[in-house]
Amino acid sequence: MATTRLKLRSYAAAFLNAVFFDLHLYLILGVVLGVIASFIDISYEWLNDYREGYCQTGFYLNQRFCCWAEKSYATCAGWVSWSKYLGIQSPVASWLYHYLVYILSGVLLAGASSVLVVYFAPYASSSGISEIKTILGGYKIPRFLGFRTLVIKIIGTVLAVASGLGVGKEGSLVHIAGCCGNILSRLFGRFRNNEAKRQEMLSVASAAGISVAFGAPIGGVLFSLEELSYYFPSQTMWRSFFCAMVASMMLKFMNPFRTGKLVAFQVTYDRAWHGFELVFFIILGALGGIIGTAIIRLNLWAATRRQLAWVRANPVTEVLCLAAVTSAINFLNILLQVDTVELVSNLFTECADMGYEGICDPSRIGRTVLLLIAAAILKTLFASVTYGTKVPGGILMPSMAIGACTGRAIGILVQLWQRHYPTLAIFRSCAPDVPCVTPGVYALVGAAATMAGVTRMTITTVVVMFELTGALIYVLPIMVAVTVSKWVGDGFGPDGIFERLIRFHGYPYLGPQVRYPRETAAAEVMTRVQDLVVIATATAPTNTLAGLREFLIRTGYQGFPVVQSLETMQLVGYVSRPKLQAAVEQALKVDGYSEDTVAYFGTSLTMDHPVTTRFVDLRAALDTPPITMSLTTPMFLVIETFKQLGLRYILITRNGQLNGLITKKDVLRHLAALDNRSERYQSIPGTYHYDPVYPGQSSPSNEYGDRPSAHFTHRFPPVPQQRFASLTEDEIVS
Amino acid sequence: MATTRLKLRSYAAAFLNAVFFDLHLYLILGVVLGVIASFIDISYEWLNDYREGYCQTGFYLNQRFCCWAEKSYATCAGWVSWSKYLGIQSPVASWLYHYLVYILSGVLLAGASSVLVVYFAPYASSSGISEIKTILGGYKIPRFLGFRTLVIKIIGTVLAVASGLGVGKEGSLVHIAGCCGNILSRLFGRFRNNEAKRQEMLSVASAAGISVAFGAPIGGVLFSLEELSYYFPSQTMWRSFFCAMVASMMLKFMNPFRTGKLVAFQVTYDRAWHGFELVFFIILGALGGIIGTAIIRLNLWAATRRQLAWVRANPVTEVLCLAAVTSAINFLNILLQVDTVELVSNLFTECADMGYEGICDPSRIGRTVLLLIAAAILKTLFASVTYGTKVPGGILMPSMAIGACTGRAIGILVQLWQRHYPTLAIFRSCAPDVPCVTPGVYALVGAAATMAGVTRMTITTVVVMFELTGALIYVLPIMVAVTVSKWVGDGFGPDGIFERLIRFHGYPYLGPQVRYPRETAAAEVMTRVQDLVVIATATAPTNTLAGLREFLIRTGYQGFPVVQSLETMQLVGYVSRPKLQAAVEQALKVDGYSEDTVAYFGTSLTMDHPVTTRFVDLRAALDTPPITMSLTTPMFLVIETFKQLGLRYILITRNGQLNGLITKKDVLRHLAALDNRSERYQSIPGTYHYDPVYPGQSSPSNEYGDRPSAHFTHRFPPVPQQRFASLTEDEIVS
Repeated sequence: MATTRLKLRSYAAAFLNAVFFDLHLYLILGVVLGVIASFIDISYEWLNDYREGYCQTGFYLNQRFCCWAEKSYATCAGWVSWSKYLGIQSPVASWLYHYLVYILSGVLLAGASSVLVVYFAPYASSSGISEIKTILGGYKIPRFLGFRTLVIKIIGTVLAVASGLGVGKEGSLVHIAGCCGNILSRLFGRFRNNEAKRQEMLSVASAAGISVAFGAPIGGVLFSLEELSYYFPSQTMWRSFFCAMVASMMLKFMNPFRTGKLVAFQVTYDRAWHGFELVFFIILGALGGIIGTAIIRLNLWAATRRQLAWVRANPVTEVLCLAAVTSAINFLNILLQVDTVELVSNLFTECADMGYEGICDPSRIGRTVLLLIAAAILKTLFASVTYGTKVPGGILMPSMAIGACTGRAIGILVQLWQRHYPTLAIFRSCAPDVPCVTPGVYALVGAAATMAGVTRMTITTVVVMFELTGALIYVLPIMVAVTVSKWVGDGFGPDGIFERLIRFHGYPYLGPQVRYPRETAAAEVMTRVQDLVVIATATAPTNTLAGLREFLIRTGYQGFPVVQSLETMQLVGYVSRPKLQAAVEQALKVDGYSEDTVAYFGTSLTMDHPVTTRFVDLRAALDTPPITMSLTTPMFLVIETFKQLGLRYILITRNGQLNGLITKKDVLRHLAALDNRSERYQSIPGTYHYDPVYPGQSSPSNEYGDRPSAHFTHRFPPVPQQRFASLTEDEIVS
Repeated sequence: MATTRLKLRSYAAAFLNAVFFDLHLYLILGVVLGVIASFIDISYEWLNDYREGYCQTGFYLNQRFCCWAEKSYATCAGWVSWSKYLGIQSPVASWLYHYLVYILSGVLLAGASSVLVVYFAPYASSSGISEIKTILGGYKIPRFLGFRTLVIKIIGTVLAVASGLGVGKEGSLVHIAGCCGNILSRLFGRFRNNEAKRQEMLSVASAAGISVAFGAPIGGVLFSLEELSYYFPSQTMWRSFFCAMVASMMLKFMNPFRTGKLVAFQVTYDRAWHGFELVFFIILGALGGIIGTAIIRLNLWAATRRQLAWVRANPVTEVLCLAAVTSAINFLNILLQVDTVELVSNLFTECADMGYEGICDPSRIGRTVLLLIAAAILKTLFASVTYGTKVPGGILMPSMAIGACTGRAIGILVQLWQRHYPTLAIFRSCAPDVPCVTPGVYALVGAAATMAGVTRMTITTVVVMFELTGALIYVLPIMVAVTVSKWVGDGFGPDGIFERLIRFHGYPYLGPQVRYPRETAAAEVMTRVQDLVVIATATAPTNTLAGLREFLIRTGYQGFPVVQSLETMQLVGYVSRPKLQAAVEQALKVDGYSEDTVAYFGTSLTMDHPVTTRFVDLRAALDTPPITMSLTTPMFLVIETFKQLGLRYILITRNGQLNGLITKKDVLRHLAALDNRSERYQSIPGTYHYDPVYPGQSSPSNEYGDRPSAHFTHRFPPVPQQRFASLTEDEIVS
């Protein structure tokens, strides 16, 4: 009986541990994200509607809720357009007035967003996906995930999206989620001091962010896995799954769209696809790859131009000009007057289900196709140029919209063709008198293809489209289009927009698919020992506490190799600046230690000290054991090690003697120098500031609790150099 | 002009390379798998139908195709039941006769399947998922993926599934796909000699296998990622995506179900779920976790009992008995008469859509619920006991069926409750006069929960259910149930059935979620140097070619540490048996080398040889640089290194002196010894044979082309041991 109770209790403990281990934090995160996403959805719709008029029955209602009881907006008395408010009667004057208000409100909203970003939180600009990718790759960007960034990003995103600029809220939500995760992990002791847990929190938060952005819980997890995360073990996947579920559930209960559904657009298709349509889906895929490449190139071109002095000095003006042009042009194309999500939703829908703005009017097919193509081209231009300016917002939804326009246009043309020549051989599988081609499906496939072309994500794209529309029977066509799009896109250049921007900005990030040369050896890439600042433990000045303090003031690097003496260069280890600083300062406070106390790093002490000398043991400050490799290690192995173990530096030794140091940045420079096709690898002064990482920062992995990065040789203490009489240098190395 | 053409050509080359690089192989693989899956689907249905009768119009037609033109099976003249064939009139005699035929045919089919497996391809038994997981973890099981295994597995799976045994075809298809991938990669030079590419092929093939098994292309990719693969970079994911797409496309065009759909059951639900139903979904999740645990424990219990001598000696008899019992009992429960896929499909369907076997009869609810519960219990027993016997077949679909029965039963009860007390507070959200509770949805949720309970897969389960049914609006309930199921299951024990079987069989596999103790150091786990068989390069007998040849004959291990001499134990490197054997034999064939020629492994040669001695350079046979760690390295770091770099051995050194060796098997033994709750870690003699891996095999990564596993210290040549006067051993190690 007692044993049974004991057994039961141990089961209960295991159960509770399995259930609640860290999950409460992810629960909180999910709830917070669900609320934030609902807030964004509700507020930008409200702001957007206020560009046209206002609600008499309650200023806090948007047009949809204001006219909830009415059958159509036309008969809705509660909603008053601005021209009606001013009593303008003439249609021309009314149109002009509306046009003016549209442009002015767009400029105003975009300007407000930009001012907030530029003056209060410069990190809140753009989508932040490239930066989060970089952070997950092991680098820190201070304040990038702070509270102020979070607040400004939320408000800025609402303003920017409502202004009609060519950005979407979806990318922003990744950054917002990252901020929330980071702030949460600061509040909890277990996470605060555990770099690995904080990284995991960021992976999980990104997943939940995309989940609520698209209403696609599984798509969010896959986004984090496929696009963002460096390290995604099954434990992280499971936590992402949980957090994405909670966030989506919260979003569903907040119900911002008042439809009881997770997404603004949920479409159902009844008709199966026909074999011949595959040809068009392949064409759509190819188009998606080409458009994706165009967007990436235009965006990089714009980013280069943005480096010009006068643009950099006036980021708000740039946004204001862009907003004015965007609003002025969008207003003229009826498709672009609505916001991007609504546009995509309209394009996905089958004609039988709705009669939206003449898209389905069979008598005006020519005009519709022209409008769609114009919309695709304009959106491409605006999205490419706007993504990267000083407003928050992403490129995911705009790229989907561009693809949806293209797809719908092609779908309408195919439908027209089939209707006029139903007896053609390729249309044989169409049943007579039944609609055969569904242009909405083409829009769906086109959207997937373009998103895949821009981001090069495959699985994520398919699952997101799937979760957006529930179009089970169209999984295969979407997969085909995504495949072709990736092929075509990769043909023009191998990386998606987020990696390209990482390279453009010179962030220290090693992609998982780095193509490395096999011939180069570590010796060719390393910083040679004569160019390094090292700490010599046996000789002055760095053998005493005072000497070390002085040394730290004198030099600027974030970490130092420790050697026995400058003559022998026998490696002792590697010490990071903060650790050394803390250790020295602490030691000086201890009674019995003075400025002359000899620092002991683990090397033999018998050298030239009398037996009575006092020592202070600084071994705890060392990164032990440091990772060492030989001069002849091929670079592909060095790079693989950096990637697999998330390192920041590797020491190059020979017979225990320090020969050089390779940092992640050295590796990136080396790769950039080899890659002719890539953008110049350069660090652009301006927005982002990093800790100096050269000649090497302490590896974060030393503080890791459960994500240890292996250290390989604990060669302690080092052995003196030795020469071999019988073999020459060449023979040894060969 | 010329530059443009050149540029275009380089674009074209990049494009073609991106498009066709390896993909042709995956294309072939996908096509082959699509065909095999169709073949299996068609033939087991045909065989299953032949247990009841035969088709007069064509023996090759199953009942469905035989009666294609008829409205119901009752009026179908072409299909003749066996009792009608024999002219039996009395209903009792007819029933008895049918019963007999059902049992006999079940025993016959199962026996045939078992005989094929036991006598022709013992590796073809069970689903093979655990073994593929192990192979993907870095170990080889010879002939496990061979041609004969493939053929027997296909035929055996058809026979076993048709016999009505409690196994599904889905798990088998992973193994079948693995065989196809392996055979394909043997046919192509690029793959034949590249271990990394073959591993990738196996990951990709498994993904495609699950894709065609469930008709769930994305689910297949995620299965390979979440359950099987050790190493799943984005390149592999993309290839899996492509291969799964091709295979599914092929399956769709083969169209084995003649419905134009990918899966046998595709259900559409119209009704949204209500908040109160979450309570029941959570209950279903908990039940799923409990049933999953029960299945795992029963299965392991059965596997232990199967070790008894007389069972092991008579595997076919065991299967025959099982088949007789299964058939005899299944026939009495009308739900279990049909095959598992059909059962699941029926249970998922809404009542309005069909009138299957009284499940929807409102006047017999009590009987229906009892039948469902009985079916769930029986299926649990049969599936647990049968999975692991000498017939091919998996546990995925049976576990889904068990969950579907449970879920449907609970759904019917909830529906009944709601109908009788529609005014209760919790049913407030139900609209009056409209069906509120859909039992089919409960079946769906229950199936997901039980599959998650058995396998502990989260994302994969949700996506597979999603792709099976297109139940977009039920993603959140399914996610909730899967989460709860995993919680409850993990509370009883952390691993899914595949890992548990790996541990039970003692396969050398390090799971991604190994929980390691932080205190232990490498020194406590390693095989000490005095227990190792090493090659000493400076002293006889292993310093000459003849001596080495003799040494290889005398010792049985697969690899050896190489040291300078037995006195100094200075580490030179590590050599694997095959490489050393090849090198010695090749050298002996060369003119000028004799049996007395001194073998040179890179150590100093000046020791005791005259200057005129001839040497043969065997350095190329060494694994250089071998991975070394220190005695004090914490075990969690050692384990992480094994996992991250896919190693088989790590040498333990101190100051360049060999102190010991840790193999993956040592690590597994260490972990098993620590884990009290786990099954005994033991190697069970019998079915599976491995290369001896102790005291260490050569790392496969040395042959890897593009999956280099890093090697860290290229300390060449080794330095002599050194003692430190001023510090005692304790001080150094502290």
